[in-house]
Amino acid sequence: MLTLGVIGCGYWGPNLVRNFYSQPDTRVTKVADLSRERLQHMETLFPALETTQDHRELIEDPGLDAIVISTPVTTHYKLAKEALEAGKHVFLEKPLTHNAAESLELVKLAEAKGLVGMVGHTFLYSPAVMKIKELVDAGELGEVQYISTIRVNLGLFQDDINVVWDLAPHDISIFNFIFGSVPDRVNAVGHDYIQPEIEDVAFLTFRYPKGKLAHVHVSWLDPNKIRKTTVVGSKKMLVYDDVSTLEKIRVYDKGVDVHRHYDTFGEFHLAYRFGDISIPKLADGEPLKAETAHFLDCIRKGTPCRSSFLHGHQVVVALEHACRSMGDSGGETAIDYGL
Amino acid sequence: MLTLGVIGCGYWGPNLVRNFYSQPDTRVTKVADLSRERLQHMETLFPALETTQDHRELIEDPGLDAIVISTPVTTHYKLAKEALEAGKHVFLEKPLTHNAAESLELVKLAEAKGLVGMVGHTFLYSPAVMKIKELVDAGELGEVQYISTIRVNLGLFQDDINVVWDLAPHDISIFNFIFGSVPDRVNAVGHDYIQPEIEDVAFLTFRYPKGKLAHVHVSWLDPNKIRKTTVVGSKKMLVYDDVSTLEKIRVYDKGVDVHRHYDTFGEFHLAYRFGDISIPKLADGEPLKAETAHFLDCIRKGTPCRSSFLHGHQVVVALEHACRSMGDSGGETAIDYGL
Amino acid sequence: MLTLGVIGCGYWGPNLVRNFYSQPDTRVTKVADLSRERLQHMETLFPALETTQDHRELIEDPGLDAIVISTPVTTHYKLAKEALEAGKHVFLEKPLTHNAAESLELVKLAEAKGLVGMVGHTFLYSPAVMKIKELVDAGELGEVQYISTIRVNLGLFQDDINVVWDLAPHDISIFNFIFGSVPDRVNAVGHDYIQPEIEDVAFLTFRYPKGKLAHVHVSWLDPNKIRKTTVVGSKKMLVYDDVSTLEKIRVYDKGVDVHRHYDTFGEFHLAYRFGDISIPKLADGEPLKAETAHFLDCIRKGTPCRSSFLHGHQVVVALEHACRSMGDSGGETAIDYGL
Amino acid sequence: MLTLGVIGCGYWGPNLVRNFYSQPDTRVTKVADLSRERLQHMETLFPALETTQDHRELIEDPGLDAIVISTPVTTHYKLAKEALEAGKHVFLEKPLTHNAAESLELVKLAEAKGLVGMVGHTFLYSPAVMKIKELVDAGELGEVQYISTIRVNLGLFQDDINVVWDLAPHDISIFNFIFGSVPDRVNAVGHDYIQPEIEDVAFLTFRYPKGKLAHVHVSWLDPNKIRKTTVVGSKKMLVYDDVSTLEKIRVYDKGVDVHRHYDTFGEFHLAYRFGDISIPKLADGEPLKAETAHFLDCIRKGTPCRSSFLHGHQVVVALEHACRSMGDSGGETAIDYGL
Repeated sequence: MLTLGVIGCGYWGPNLVRNFYSQPDTRVTKVADLSRERLQHMETLFPALETTQDHRELIEDPGLDAIVISTPVTTHYKLAKEALEAGKHVFLEKPLTHNAAESLELVKLAEAKGLVGMVGHTFLYSPAVMKIKELVDAGELGEVQYISTIRVNLGLFQDDINVVWDLAPHDISIFNFIFGSVPDRVNAVGHDYIQPEIEDVAFLTFRYPKGKLAHVHVSWLDPNKIRKTTVVGSKKMLVYDDVSTLEKIRVYDKGVDVHRHYDTFGEFHLAYRFGDISIPKLADGEPLKAETAHFLDCIRKGTPCRSSFLHGHQVVVALEHACRSMGDSGGETAIDYGL
Repeated sequence: MLTLGVIGCGYWGPNLVRNFYSQPDTRVTKVADLSRERLQHMETLFPALETTQDHRELIEDPGLDAIVISTPVTTHYKLAKEALEAGKHVFLEKPLTHNAAESLELVKLAEAKGLVGMVGHTFLYSPAVMKIKELVDAGELGEVQYISTIRVNLGLFQDDINVVWDLAPHDISIFNFIFGSVPDRVNAVGHDYIQPEIEDVAFLTFRYPKGKLAHVHVSWLDPNKIRKTTVVGSKKMLVYDDVSTLEKIRVYDKGVDVHRHYDTFGEFHLAYRFGDISIPKLADGEPLKAETAHFLDCIRKGTPCRSSFLHGHQVVVALEHACRSMGDSGGETAIDYGL
Repeated sequence: MLTLGVIGCGYWGPNLVRNFYSQPDTRVTKVADLSRERLQHMETLFPALETTQDHRELIEDPGLDAIVISTPVTTHYKLAKEALEAGKHVFLEKPLTHNAAESLELVKLAEAKGLVGMVGHTFLYSPAVMKIKELVDAGELGEVQYISTIRVNLGLFQDDINVVWDLAPHDISIFNFIFGSVPDRVNAVGHDYIQPEIEDVAFLTFRYPKGKLAHVHVSWLDPNKIRKTTVVGSKKMLVYDDVSTLEKIRVYDKGVDVHRHYDTFGEFHLAYRFGDISIPKLADGEPLKAETAHFLDCIRKGTPCRSSFLHGHQVVVALEHACRSMGDSGGETAIDYGL
Repeated sequence: MLTLGVIGCGYWGPNLVRNFYSQPDTRVTKVADLSRERLQHMETLFPALETTQDHRELIEDPGLDAIVISTPVTTHYKLAKEALEAGKHVFLEKPLTHNAAESLELVKLAEAKGLVGMVGHTFLYSPAVMKIKELVDAGELGEVQYISTIRVNLGLFQDDINVVWDLAPHDISIFNFIFGSVPDRVNAVGHDYIQPEIEDVAFLTFRYPKGKLAHVHVSWLDPNKIRKTTVVGSKKMLVYDDVSTLEKIRVYDKGVDVHRHYDTFGEFHLAYRFGDISIPKLADGEPLKAETAHFLDCIRKGTPCRSSFLHGHQVVVALEHACRSMGDSGGETAIDYGL
């Protein structure tokens, strides 16, 4: 039996409690929130829960194996550090922190303590992204050349973070997962149309090892919501449309066969292949359920975590450097992970 | 009656001849091409045409009012210059030239001679782009904030020009037309996957006056052909899908109303509007027909040309600087039009 | 304050309880079900509810103003009759009964007692169908000529009713609502592929007054779920796609203008108009919420009910005659409402 | 070398001439049309053609092996009979004739003379329909249960034939080809909204042997053009959308597995399978080219013709009986092929 406490019962917290509740051999016993009203709401939903406004009661409770943190990002570092130092495994909502120095410290602390640190990069547990990873790793697409993502909608405008920090964590996490590597350079351009100095549209281009590219278009200005990721490989191309309900992934069995026929005039020709399109049936699972199960598994078996603190740190660093390039007129910025 | 000669009878030439033929009070009397075979093909299609392998016969023919040039881009400068110097109006296929120095010289020469110089930026004469221009100028979208374009397909790989020179002229021409201005800075990132040093995928971001952005994604690697332009305004958003046959333009009547209610905690809220989508019926006209008619009109009436040599020069300069930024690791490059 | 009791807590019952709960000045105090297990489930969801396995406790409770019945269709007649005779208003899930004689008796009984009898034809309270009704009544489509519906999916095969009784009640209810009249003849053809004598695919054609047609294709055999209603008018055409999340209704502003130009050869020509397509924004409301509110309103204000027992009876009669035509090799069957 | 003459140079005739021209070892030498103007048009397009206003010149020309007839349907019988009696193979545009007695006579005459008689049911030579036939015959869909077709658009209203004769020949031809059999009964309902006694919308249901159904919805009233055929099999379902350019055929790998588990209460359950969707790449060929090649092949090799006069006759008979049912209030009509 694993026993968990949850800090933060806002927007996402009840979802986390409900999902951890539904896992076998697991119980959530305590939740903390600064808001008395949110705690009362939790008591109604889950009558057996103990509630408190003082998160220290959870940190100091020897009966808790792990702490789940679902609070504003500015508090992540402090809370996670306290929990790790008290010997608790930690699950944190994404992004891990708001700067690379703090996220690196958490990576090292979790490692030093031998504790599981996991970030809620939920997409890595979604049937669609897992299917893409499976197809890519099986070589179905050939060599992946570039990935391009559009993630735009009418934004929930925020006054503390820009659209890059709001939306791009998903994409960077997905890129790193699919490529199995991290970007070493980034160019980024953006603009602030609504609120001064808070970019609401941005274009990011990351360079990964072996000449791979990943491009992100994020925006809070587009009334037509789009969530589309295109993975172009040397053999096939895959389009992942997260807004579609029934046809999230389409695989285009077409590609370029390079046939170079140099004749006396130095010309060459490229042959083209076009083929079938397929729309694979995806598994039905809820990503949050798979994610919470994975956290518990990592604790129990000591196996590596798909969205570990290290993964979360790499996302934070990439975001930080993208914003640095944006502030530097889009110039290429080498990404330093501090590792 | 206007009398025209056409130099170059390859891929696009017969189309031009056919369209000029169909215009009232206009005749095409001579065509030139280096290939005897292409000339015979033209004789079959248009028995009344005189044909020659020597383009000088056209340049020197006092009976011709205008020369239409549809040859490889590397020959544009020389041929256009000869024609202008011989006092002929000139219609050139896009792009105007392959470098800014030459295109600027042609702009100045046409102006000095008082002749019409026009570049075949056909999209500016398409019902869809003209509809967008009309909606934008009427203020239907509010203030246009940014335009984003995807123009990708399995490429007709070329060994002399990259994907930017191949596909982006369309987009830059459209941007300049819609905005009614030219970009002053550009960042560009690309990569060469198939042929060394010939980029086959690229991402360009142009900055226009008043903080407007225009972003282009071009690629020769994508089996799923996409031609999509998104125009985001402060009131509405428009999506132009050139691959669709019946529903090329969709207008999303949604937008962000900035309602700032500062309370004592300095918070503010943004209200959202969502509304109808409309798919306007477009005019039926063939772009090439409208384009050729426009050229003849400019000659007859002395009115300004929508895709003048100046417009063509501005596209060439933007392309040149985009490639410069691409060679400079995507750093921001100020665009100098030499004017 | 109106006080309600609910008989039947299966698939749909909890939804009804929840919705009536959320209405102002309304309370649900008792629920009955034969299954002890379902009652315990209800107690968990709604701790304040009294539960019983004996529905007579509700019928005989003088504190209840209305009875909500969500049980198998074969029990509808008996339960509704008991409730009406005890002086309660009655809300019944659709279809009203399984035969016309019983539904007619309920219509007359409710009328004689001066009580509200309402059937849960939920689509009449959906934003999409209400929008269609509004457009049709405003003359936006011109004269409606015919309606055609496809309602197919992989079926929840049932062993007591066929696909016509399962799926077509929705369509007939919608037709009668939009036309503001009832069909007077029907032809129907069907077949039983999976279970003998239980039709799993059927095609029904209803004739309404003034030459209007309504056609229904229902099937349990189609893996690709479709819910599509096309309303063809003399001026415009409307397509309602209930599977779409964001674009449920499309209006095609096209039509046939009959221009008859008889020349000496007796020929004539018809001119065509094609126009814009529009996708109106629909209201956001949940149909079940609007439906339950409407029932309470009808009780309080004595206003007529959109999906009254009479409406429900007309649907039952149409279904019965469609099945009669199906059993009679698709011959035309006059529909007798017994009124 | 086969030598052909073509009677009728209207809408479709030049297409036929062009296609027969492009076949190897084949020549078209003469064309006949009542209109001098059409003949002049043909002379411009094909300078080597002999033209005449008297079709007897073709019938009586001993140098012609076959006659191609592309004239109004009312003249088909007379012209085809003359040609067959003169010993010519005959290719006729669809439908074969306008009544069954005449089409049957042509079937028998061609057979008696040992000549090839073929009807231009072009869909049987289209890549999409051939792909469907291939998938069905290979058992990919399991046992085909029913086919349903929608063929609607804003009509080219005609004053001599109704929408059934105009549009349904395609569907019946396709049904017969896919099923490999002919319908034995039909129910049909229609209505005349625009011109009295010329139905402009109709719903037809054909019954084929072994309980198979085929349903057709045709209309001239719908501004949104639809050409959609759904083939439901016991294992998979296929949707053929002829309006789509790139994704004409979608195969849904889903179906119903009948698992009957009778427990003590007589209940049973059906299990469901859902699976992948695939969009097969179709061959690129032009149907008319394949069709004309097939005609020549049948003449040369004496092999059976896919759209023989018999096939054409079966379509005519089905149309005739559908209209009879329509005139008889939609009652079931047994189809008598007179064979």
